[in-house]
Amino acid sequence: MSDIQGERAFLACDWGSTHLRAWVLDQGGVVLRGREFPLGVNRLGPGEAARRFFEKVRPALAAEGLPALLCGAIGSNVGWTVAPYVDCPARPEAVAAGLIAAAEGVWIAPGLRCEGLGGQCDVLRGEETQAFGWLGLEADRQAGRRLICQPGTHAKWLVAEDGAIVRFLSAFTGELFAVLSDHSILRNDGRADDLGAFDEGRAAAAEGDALLNRIYAARTRVAGGGADAASTGSFLSGLLIGAEVAATPALLGLEGETVDLVGGAGLCGRYARALERRGVSSRIWDGDAAVRAGLLALARLRGLV
Amino acid sequence: MSDIQGERAFLACDWGSTHLRAWVLDQGGVVLRGREFPLGVNRLGPGEAARRFFEKVRPALAAEGLPALLCGAIGSNVGWTVAPYVDCPARPEAVAAGLIAAAEGVWIAPGLRCEGLGGQCDVLRGEETQAFGWLGLEADRQAGRRLICQPGTHAKWLVAEDGAIVRFLSAFTGELFAVLSDHSILRNDGRADDLGAFDEGRAAAAEGDALLNRIYAARTRVAGGGADAASTGSFLSGLLIGAEVAATPALLGLEGETVDLVGGAGLCGRYARALERRGVSSRIWDGDAAVRAGLLALARLRGLV
Repeated sequence: MSDIQGERAFLACDWGSTHLRAWVLDQGGVVLRGREFPLGVNRLGPGEAARRFFEKVRPALAAEGLPALLCGAIGSNVGWTVAPYVDCPARPEAVAAGLIAAAEGVWIAPGLRCEGLGGQCDVLRGEETQAFGWLGLEADRQAGRRLICQPGTHAKWLVAEDGAIVRFLSAFTGELFAVLSDHSILRNDGRADDLGAFDEGRAAAAEGDALLNRIYAARTRVAGGGADAASTGSFLSGLLIGAEVAATPALLGLEGETVDLVGGAGLCGRYARALERRGVSSRIWDGDAAVRAGLLALARLRGLV
Repeated sequence: MSDIQGERAFLACDWGSTHLRAWVLDQGGVVLRGREFPLGVNRLGPGEAARRFFEKVRPALAAEGLPALLCGAIGSNVGWTVAPYVDCPARPEAVAAGLIAAAEGVWIAPGLRCEGLGGQCDVLRGEETQAFGWLGLEADRQAGRRLICQPGTHAKWLVAEDGAIVRFLSAFTGELFAVLSDHSILRNDGRADDLGAFDEGRAAAAEGDALLNRIYAARTRVAGGGADAASTGSFLSGLLIGAEVAATPALLGLEGETVDLVGGAGLCGRYARALERRGVSSRIWDGDAAVRAGLLALARLRGLV
């Protein structure tokens, strides 16, 4: 419980695998200050998270003395302190009850777990907070069913019913695009702004089946078909996103359902384009606003603000 | 046309993306000398192939003055000299007629091209020579249909009819396993000898569909399911090979057909295991012997020996 300019405020952090975004929010959710740091947990050594937080992140936002709430991979076994998963179906209250104290005044939100494909479990961290935030931004999102897609390193497709997250499914799309673009024979600059090549890749994805065979087309269209190698990133993006949007809704039993895309505008736009070519409608929503709303909701539920 | 101990001999090279294997063969195919070099074309700079060949490879095998025949990626645009693709259906005579002179007495075999998935073309280099060699090793392989699988960085599935390669299909499996094992959150030591985890991965591959979703299981079984992270390589190998063997024969219209696996014993053994779990029979054949037989056959057809 802290006081800035006569209001209670807190430090809200979306601390994922590749980045940390931090904001000081007042109790109405207004952003007082914000910063992004290249401190994703994938880049941190053991024990480094706490040191970086206290020495760099908190001072940079002048947030000493404010309570802090963190969500994302920071709560995993390669983060700061493990915040055990909450099982689906899950409501915000269950996640708020599962907050773990990593240090005095520093709270970490747990991720979610559900039954995945073929008897495996599936897990997420951070997307629960973003999704709860998005669901809470408009009253009508709390009623009925929503299919939410959160593109990213590991895209998540969540099914929400009456405000609860009832199940979800992950896709390795973003990380696969990154490792193929950086380290394989399909090496490219990671740009995917050639819409013609993107659409060509999306069409090559077919129904999302036989991906190991279809990926090779990104090589043969250049080596044997005379396509410009500079378009490989766009083709590959279309191929992988195309495969994901073809396969995932059907696995969730929601083929054809309108998709609410929550994330960055550029990547969400490519998902929307791939969905549209399949005749599926979608809407795009700002991911940062959603995760801030989710952190605020959890902070309120736990009485931090 | 050269003379070693009273016989004509030649230098036979399988020069691929990652390795170069070279043998001096007599005109009956007997191996007089052999060496392997870490000189795959992926590691060579522009113009480096010729220099390495003349300064290192040929002297190391005491093959100065012998004709040389090379197959594989060395004939691609990142190799030595481009040997234009021969279109399927193709017989050994067409490949022999397409040999390109890279230098005095140094010949490079062309690869093959055929129509692939979704209107794309598909290509290979080196596997044509290995497959023709394998087909020629026993008279009965020249009659009727064979489904040949050559596991590797980019696995190839070839359909041969009456000694001709009529079509084929590539799979990105080997390279995908390598980049995920070296550079992703699924990082592992690349070993795949835990058969229990391999079988678990193969089962998780299901029918080869929705691979982007199913790959994530390699993460969740450790992060959420308590599996030993040391088994990730074996699980991932089973998942990817399982997806390949589930999808590829069906795409070729040959589901259930006996598969002739040509390659290294360890990797072919894992393919055989994955096929067997699907009720598909297979046989394993030595890849080096096959590629040497193919190089000899092409050298004879062209009158090099």
